[in-house]
Amino acid sequence: MAARTVALGPGGEFDLIRRFLAHPEALSPDVLVGPGDDAAVLQGGWVVSADLSVEDVHFRRGWLEDDEVGFRAAAAALSDLAAMAATPVGVLVSMAFPRGGRWDPERVQEGVRQAAGLAGAAVLGGDVSRSPGPLVLDVTVLGRAPSPVLRAGAVPGDEVWVTGALGASAAAVRIWEGGGEPGAPLRGAFARPVARTGAATALARNGVLHAMVDVSDGLAGDAGHLAAAGGVALVLEVASIPVAHAAAVALGEDQARDGALHGGEDYELCFAAPPGAVTPSVAEDVGIPLTRVGRVEAGEGVWLEDATGARSRPTRGGYDHAGGGG
Amino acid sequence: MAARTVALGPGGEFDLIRRFLAHPEALSPDVLVGPGDDAAVLQGGWVVSADLSVEDVHFRRGWLEDDEVGFRAAAAALSDLAAMAATPVGVLVSMAFPRGGRWDPERVQEGVRQAAGLAGAAVLGGDVSRSPGPLVLDVTVLGRAPSPVLRAGAVPGDEVWVTGALGASAAAVRIWEGGGEPGAPLRGAFARPVARTGAATALARNGVLHAMVDVSDGLAGDAGHLAAAGGVALVLEVASIPVAHAAAVALGEDQARDGALHGGEDYELCFAAPPGAVTPSVAEDVGIPLTRVGRVEAGEGVWLEDATGARSRPTRGGYDHAGGGG
Repeated sequence: MAARTVALGPGGEFDLIRRFLAHPEALSPDVLVGPGDDAAVLQGGWVVSADLSVEDVHFRRGWLEDDEVGFRAAAAALSDLAAMAATPVGVLVSMAFPRGGRWDPERVQEGVRQAAGLAGAAVLGGDVSRSPGPLVLDVTVLGRAPSPVLRAGAVPGDEVWVTGALGASAAAVRIWEGGGEPGAPLRGAFARPVARTGAATALARNGVLHAMVDVSDGLAGDAGHLAAAGGVALVLEVASIPVAHAAAVALGEDQARDGALHGGEDYELCFAAPPGAVTPSVAEDVGIPLTRVGRVEAGEGVWLEDATGARSRPTRGGYDHAGGGG
Repeated sequence: MAARTVALGPGGEFDLIRRFLAHPEALSPDVLVGPGDDAAVLQGGWVVSADLSVEDVHFRRGWLEDDEVGFRAAAAALSDLAAMAATPVGVLVSMAFPRGGRWDPERVQEGVRQAAGLAGAAVLGGDVSRSPGPLVLDVTVLGRAPSPVLRAGAVPGDEVWVTGALGASAAAVRIWEGGGEPGAPLRGAFARPVARTGAATALARNGVLHAMVDVSDGLAGDAGHLAAAGGVALVLEVASIPVAHAAAVALGEDQARDGALHGGEDYELCFAAPPGAVTPSVAEDVGIPLTRVGRVEAGEGVWLEDATGARSRPTRGGYDHAGGGG
């Protein structure tokens, strides 16, 4: 496999990262996939990625227990391994703790350990510091993938699928931000997301994956990454999107669907597969719900198609942790 | 090589990290060296470590230019690869930027890229977020070492050596904290340290290394890691320690030596070698000054030995970024 970089979809959060690509260094032959995908790939099939969680940007003290902060930070990072169909091996966790005892370092670490352990990975190191500011966690994940699945690779005619259901985490945030308290299923989706590493490796084992991304910034935004990397258009059939039931009950169908498209932090997978490849027996092997949500066409970008066949472009780019909103 | 963990020396900063070791997970056979050394080692000889830099803990706005913050954060992380005698390949950089434009993200990144490039490594990814708090950088480094050098391995009779000169970075901090402005050599030692990755691989190539650590928390503290990991005593002959000339000129010999022993962020190497192994031809191959500073004996911990042969224990454990001081 040649060293390569991959085009990124739109979104203010990605502008900074995109600038890394403007200065492509000469990559060592030890680097098989450089910056721009969900993770880098190194000789030996090692896959590596890092994910940052910042208090009052990604979560708030009143929303989460200490261990949940560690759990979701690690799950978010592990989701990038899932997106590559890599099997998690280890994590490094770096944590800057505010003074004043607002967070318990041991319990935060314990959450990281739990999420890593669920995925079959161990904590291999990291760093710790005090800080005059908010709690900041950076989790680096290391996994192995004999055949890593990239964002590039979707071709016209492919079906677009997602795992699980979308929008529960965004609904929890919406309810918290409105002064309410989300019910257990919504709160759990935000506080203890589970990276789809097992489903991803099962899909890879069944040979159905042309391209894959994890759904961390809303389906519309992440589908945009598949479109940009593959040089194709992704048509999302909006009525097919599996919106989390508890989100629809809490917010109504329309707002819940908006959260699925433009919210974030679902940590499900979106993938392109050849027509008919995702058979019932593949779905049974994967073991979690799989829903066909659209198709790949020639063109560029993401289209939202309603039940009448009318198309529009997504109007928001998903969560933007680097910009002014959220 | 079997999966192993390594005992850590004393120091408040390390208590949290040490607790990781209290819950040793079952390590995958893909993990050759787990937590507790300067870096973890994975199948294929991949070496990985992370290092956190927090504004107003590790550096201050008035001390550094934007690119220097990135440069020194990356150099600090790369120094952990040097400590393992690994050749750097790539870095991931995660950055949480405060609002208000106090730091220029592009220039900070450029500094990371410069330090990585000097060490032969490329930026492979990372993450970026805004933050309501200080600038936080976490740099994860990835390198390869066919035969990684651990902290464990020093045996009684070994000589203890250090690369370069110590105490310049600590002197710069002391002068800044006293309201002064350090001269160029001291400022440069703090702002643009160079990880000793080339020297480390040269030492390894010459087969002289029993054990090694980087000097990031003061020689006394880091020598303590070699002692603890090896189950031996390290005797430092205080008069032999190569104190940076500019530090001695600025602060006087005694304070400069105190900075070398108990300061930090020199990013030199301290290693144990068999008697006579570091010959002039080895030193020439390494290409930077090497100074014999002591010896390994049976026992435990670090001894400071003065010119009369009188011994004392170090009274401070080096910089403590997790505790109350610094």
